[in-house]
Parts: sequence; structure tokens; C-alpha cells
Amino acid sequence: MSDLAALERALRDADGGRVSVTADDRARASTDRSGWVPASPPVAVVRARGVADVVATLRWASAHAVPVVPRGAGTGLAGGAVAGADAVVLDLSGLTRIVEIRADDLVAVVEPGVLTADLDRAAAVHGLRYAPDPASATISTIGGNIATNAGGLRCVKYGVTRDSVLGLDVVLADGTRTRTGRATVKGVAGYDLTSLFVGSEGTLGVIVGATLRLHPGPARTATAAAHFATVAAAAAAASAVTRAGARPAMLELLDAATLEALDAAGPPGGALLLAQADGPGADVEIDAIAAVLGRTATRLDVATDPRRADELVAVRRRALPAIERRGRVLIEDIAVPPSRLAETVTRIGELSARTGVPVFTFAHAGDGNLHPIVLTGQPFGDPGPVPADVTAVVDDIFRLALDLGGTITGEHGVGLLKRKWLAAELDAGAGELHRRIKAAFDPHSVLNPGKAL
Amino acid sequence: MSDLAALERALRDADGGRVSVTADDRARASTDRSGWVPASPPVAVVRARGVADVVATLRWASAHAVPVVPRGAGTGLAGGAVAGADAVVLDLSGLTRIVEIRADDLVAVVEPGVLTADLDRAAAVHGLRYAPDPASATISTIGGNIATNAGGLRCVKYGVTRDSVLGLDVVLADGTRTRTGRATVKGVAGYDLTSLFVGSEGTLGVIVGATLRLHPGPARTATAAAHFATVAAAAAAASAVTRAGARPAMLELLDAATLEALDAAGPPGGALLLAQADGPGADVEIDAIAAVLGRTATRLDVATDPRRADELVAVRRRALPAIERRGRVLIEDIAVPPSRLAETVTRIGELSARTGVPVFTFAHAGDGNLHPIVLTGQPFGDPGPVPADVTAVVDDIFRLALDLGGTITGEHGVGLLKRKWLAAELDAGAGELHRRIKAAFDPHSVLNPGKAL
Repeated sequence: MSDLAALERALRDADGGRVSVTADDRARASTDRSGWVPASPPVAVVRARGVADVVATLRWASAHAVPVVPRGAGTGLAGGAVAGADAVVLDLSGLTRIVEIRADDLVAVVEPGVLTADLDRAAAVHGLRYAPDPASATISTIGGNIATNAGGLRCVKYGVTRDSVLGLDVVLADGTRTRTGRATVKGVAGYDLTSLFVGSEGTLGVIVGATLRLHPGPARTATAAAHFATVAAAAAAASAVTRAGARPAMLELLDAATLEALDAAGPPGGALLLAQADGPGADVEIDAIAAVLGRTATRLDVATDPRRADELVAVRRRALPAIERRGRVLIEDIAVPPSRLAETVTRIGELSARTGVPVFTFAHAGDGNLHPIVLTGQPFGDPGPVPADVTAVVDDIFRLALDLGGTITGEHGVGLLKRKWLAAELDAGAGELHRRIKAAFDPHSVLNPGKAL
Repeated sequence: MSDLAALERALRDADGGRVSVTADDRARASTDRSGWVPASPPVAVVRARGVADVVATLRWASAHAVPVVPRGAGTGLAGGAVAGADAVVLDLSGLTRIVEIRADDLVAVVEPGVLTADLDRAAAVHGLRYAPDPASATISTIGGNIATNAGGLRCVKYGVTRDSVLGLDVVLADGTRTRTGRATVKGVAGYDLTSLFVGSEGTLGVIVGATLRLHPGPARTATAAAHFATVAAAAAAASAVTRAGARPAMLELLDAATLEALDAAGPPGGALLLAQADGPGADVEIDAIAAVLGRTATRLDVATDPRRADELVAVRRRALPAIERRGRVLIEDIAVPPSRLAETVTRIGELSARTGVPVFTFAHAGDGNLHPIVLTGQPFGDPGPVPADVTAVVDDIFRLALDLGGTITGEHGVGLLKRKWLAAELDAGAGELHRRIKAAFDPHSVLNPGKAL
């Protein structure tokens, strides 16, 4: 593609971003953590060094009708950042400045390549924290988190990424730079463009900056771990906690298969529920939560000292790595109404038993967001096609979520892999509105074509 | 307009909605609580009896290029529902069904004409509540609340209306009916159309149903009222409460002028801060809050019994009626970053003193959302033009909000009255995106033209 010479010149006049066409760089930029690998790699990778490089790249791409795939750390699980033969990858991982933390305003202004955990650490210096905590926080970027509206364990109290994004700095497909939102918590001047960009997976614009909401670090934290004889009992207890008026900062469920993978299983078929309360009233709140859990739990531990609490929660954080030791996994991400949580976990267990395809389910129980982890039977890291019987199980899981009034993705996004299921979730009118919005923002379909829609 | 006969026929074949052209009905439907009155009233008022009437009206309006102004209870403060000579008003206040409350899912499905307080009461039967509580809750509709993304006192902990809207049932300009969102708390399948409709003031579609999030009623509530010598001290104390890691369910500030109007003034120049905590840990949390307030307060009352707490909060709820007894008011609605709250109230006080135009300010202090109430010098209910010196003061208040990094509207919307200020808040790129979205959703500009943009 001789057009690349023009792009290189434009970048030289901008912030000095580089174009790489080495086989290694192109291969690395072709895939993400979904395991999906395109038939051939992208034509080039642009490493942006500043916003002017993003503007230059998008102007060039619009002029030459070249698809651009924006990329952060490449930790996405739905193929939103995979890039094939006709595309140029726009790598934003070099934009790593935390521009400012205004502690008195509980606000941070950051570039998109900042790792989520790095922002949280920088906020901690001021006694604050960045609430969204996806499992990938130490390796994923804020830009990627915004593009997928990432979640995490603390969402049940503090909301998803969208709830922490006050405003965005965006470069549109034609190279126009614009700002959305504001630095205030509330505001209704104009359409909610910020929410429209959050979760749009790089298809509407490239996020080059974000004004984020911070929260005070919790004065106290208290934790309860409760074992139950059945997953249905654990799910019912999770609902009861919420109905009792407690606002846990974490409410996680692990099914029997997951506990077995963790060597933490009690009696067969059991389940574990982890609850955490935070804030000045944490000790009182965890007592209220424990009182609810204790009605049906077979075992109950409560910890108010931080070290012991960390031990209890560590079980949850080790769940995915423990399963991944058994081979290649597909990390699914459905959500259902709270009352259907027990039924969903139970039916996924039945599906696994019936098909012989191992499925381990843990869930952000307070949000009704489940992660069924499906073993493909292949070695970990195998990039080959997923066996048909495994794909059939995954399809059944999506169908189950929709049948129970839920969604095909709670916090990972649609990307490339869930597109065929999106049409089953959206009605015709909503599908048409998606196409019209895409055309209004990106008339030449330059931005991450073939994703999310 | 002889076309009305065709509309009447279409409604007869739909749900039997009625068209009124009486002078009384048209005059009533021409204005809202902003006080703005169009030069001449709308041509007709359609009283919808069901969704099919909405579809029929929009199809007819699209075919005949007639502007449609959707209307709930007409309690808006920014002129979003005012309707002039060329328009037909689509009155949705008759769609008052609470379709279902699924207590186990913490979800309600409602029609748009349900009064917000009626939903809250219906939820209370199940031990639940609808969190958003605009001051107008007893007279405004859910549809109107969604159209303006209404706020209220509890937003500081429970979020604004947007945070309680899981999904919408919408009729588009061409009569297409579509659903957005879902019944789950989390979900990232597709663009966030729900957030795009919330706050769009009837310019993108007509909301005919909503799936709303409910919260458990609080197990306990505890309240603190603290007087301070200056408004700056009160604002600083509000910031300190938040920084200390407390999550008050209410954090309200009343300035000296407001206290005087309430006959609740202490020494001149003082201010009052009201804080409420809720949940199982409410008593502990209010102690933590009171400890922070007590450092600088001149007087501090704490109440954990509900009756005494209600008395403390009643002062805040009486503020606006007390000021309205002095004559016609303009209810403004700016928001600023938390660190600028004190400066904002102080400078509004100085502006009032300098110009002689009385301004009373109370604020949702935890959100940085201020309501400067400006006396026009006219009798209450006077529909005449606002005096130029009063308009100048209001303009200065908007300019101040923007200068301090804030917004011209925190929770009331842009409507008709703040349009000229919107251009000062949005940059050129965002303005252009607004126009493109409007054109994509409503190509013939049938829906509430001339508002919000």
C-alpha cells in the first residue's frame, strides 16, 4: 500500500507517530484475548504519540477509504480489536499520561493508554480510587475499558465504566476533534454523547482523552464468605441481601465446578457467595448481610480485618487462572434479571453435564452478570478453530440468556464474535437506529468496520 | 387545518385518542412551568389513549409535516413542552398504567403518564422505592422525568433518572415502534440508545413505556442539620463529608437568603447543610458525617428517629414555596465542579447585592448542582416579559457556571429557554454531532422542533 508514505509524512508533521509494517508488529496487532485470529494480518500498525497523530491517521484513512482498528492493550475478549488484511491498526497504548487529578473535584483527566490499575494507584495517593475494576485492570487500558463499557467486581455499588465517565475527548472519523460531557457529576445540556461513545467499541470515534469520576477510598471494608448446599440457595441468598436494603460493594457467586477448579470445593454441588461492604458503616452492614446469609448458609466466615478479608476475596480473583490451567477457555459474559440467576447457573450446569463440555460459572451475583467459562478441550493458547460441540454449547448459553430476559453481553462487548447474536437481542427498529447512528458518525465506514453492529 | 379530520379518523382506528381544538385545551397545552407563553397556541391537542394513538399521530404528522410537541404533565421548567401556532400537542398524561412491578428483579414497567410519586408509592407496597425524587415528583410524569433526565435530592447516592432507566419503549418520528435497553442492570449489546433518549426532550422519539430500576427502601435513615457562619464554610464541609468516604443519600445546602425566606435564618450570611444517610449502617454513617460537620458548624442537630428527621428535611422542601410567596420566580439550575460550589454561591450573592435583583440559592451540594431562584419583581403567575435587568442577572449566572467549568443545566434541561446558551457549552464538533443525530432520528424535524438543540 503505497499510500502509507503519505501517512508517514502526515505523522512526521503531527506528533511523530510511527508506522510499522514488520511481520511481528502486524501479527501482534492482529488479535486480542478472544483467541480469534484473522486469515491475514493488518497492513500496518500506527503507534500514535499524540492526539495530532490520531487526527492525521483518521484524515488519511478517510481520504483513502482505509479501515482503522483502534487498539489499546489488546486485552478484549470479544474480538473488538482484531484486525485483518485491509485494515490499519491505530495503537493508542503509547498515550499514557495521567494529565491531572483534581482531588477536590473527585476528577481525573487521562489519556486513553493509561492502564486502569495505574490510574487507581495514582488516585490512591490522594486517598481516592477509580471504582471500575475489571479483572483485566492491571493489563487493560482506560480507552479500552471505555470502548467496551467494562465492569468488574465493584460495579454492584459503584456502577460500570459508563458511570465513571464524565466527559470524553474524541477524534471523529473525518479527523474532527470534539469534547463531550463535562467535569460535573450532573448535566443535561445536549444529548448524552458521552454514553453513546462508551461501549461503542471504536466504531463511532477514537477516544483520545477522558474526564473520569473518582471516589474516596473506603473508610472501612468488611467481608463475608458463605457456602451453600446448592447454587440455587446461594443465588436466593444474593437476592435476599439486596432486598434487605444492604448495598454491598461486591457480591460474587462461584459455582461447584469453579470451586473444584480452585481446590476449594465443599460438598458436591455447593456454591460460594462472597460479599463485601465498605464505607463508615461497613461493620454494621456486613453484620446485616451476614444475618441474611446465615439463614441458609452451610458455613459462614466474616472478616473485618483487611488481611483476612483479602484472603477471602483472593479465592474469587484466582478463579479464572485456575480454570485456564486446564486448557483453552472461552470466557462468556451473559446477564439476566436477578430472579433468574439461580435458574441460569443451574441450567448451564445441566448443559455441561449433558454435552460433556466442561463449563465453570462464576458471577457478579448482585448485577445478575454471569461468566460461564467454557473449556474447548484444546491446549491453552491454541489459536485453532473451536470444536463444533463447544460452539454449540456457547450458542445454547446465549439462547438461554435471551430466553430468560437477559443479554448476550454484560460487560465484555459484542466485538466480532457476538455479532450474529446481536440481531436476536435488538429489534428491527433499534437495529435500524444503530445503522443510522453509524452512518451519521462515520459515513465512509472507516472506524472498526465489521465490529459491534 | 383540515388535515385534522384525517388524524381523527386514524385515531378512531387506533386506541380512540381524541383531538381537541377548544381554545381552553389549546391554551392549557401551550405552556409549562417555565412561564414562557407562545404568541399563539397550538392548532390542536391529541389526548393519546394508547400506544397506537401515538403511532397514528406521528405517522400523520410525518405525512403532513406537522410539528408534534410531546407533553406529560407540563411541569417542565425550561420550556421543553411549550407549543406554538404551527404545532400539535401530543398529550401522554392519559397513559397512566403501572404495567408490572417485578419485586424480585427490582424492576417496574410503566407507561409514560404515571406520576413519579405514584410509582414510588406502588413500589413501597413491595418494600421498594423509585429513587429519583425531583421536587415535582407528585405532579410530574415519568415520561417527562425521562425526557429531561430529572434529578432530585437522592441523586447524590442513587443517581439521576438515567441511572434508573434500564430500557425504553419508543415511537420514532415515522411511527416505528422500538425497544431499547433491557431488564438487566448491566448490558453492553449495541449502542446505548437508552441514554441517548433520556434527556433528549422529545426531539428524538416519543417515550411510550419504560423499564425502570427500583431500589429496596432503606432499612434505616439518619439525618444531620448543620448551620455554618458562611456559605463558604458550609460548602467546604459538604466537600469534606464526601472526601471522608461517606455516601450520604442527601446533602443539601441552603444559603442565607433562602433561610431568611424560610424564617429560619440564624446570624446574617449563614448557611445550612442537611445530610441524610440511609441503609443498615445509617446510624454509624451519620455519626461519621456529623463528626466532619461538627469541626466547623456553629450548630449541629442529629436525628435518627424518622419524625424528627422529617422535620429537619422539611425545611429544604419548603424552600421554593417560601420564595414563590414573594412573587414570580425564575428557577435556574446550574452545576459546577464540587470545589467551585462555595465560590459559585458567594458570587451569585454578590451579583444579587450589586444589581438589587433578589436571588435565593439552594443546592444539591453533593452533586455541585445549584438552583439560584431569581425574583423577577412581578407578581406570581405574571406571564409578561421578564424585565431586562433580571434577564441580565440570569445570563450572568449562566456565564459564571461556564467560567467555573460547569454546565447551564444540571437536571431541568435546555428546552426553549436555554438554547442560546447551549452553543456556549458545546464545541463545534459536538454541535454538529447533535444535528446529525437529530437528522438521523427525525429527518423531517417533526419531533419538538426548536427545542433542546
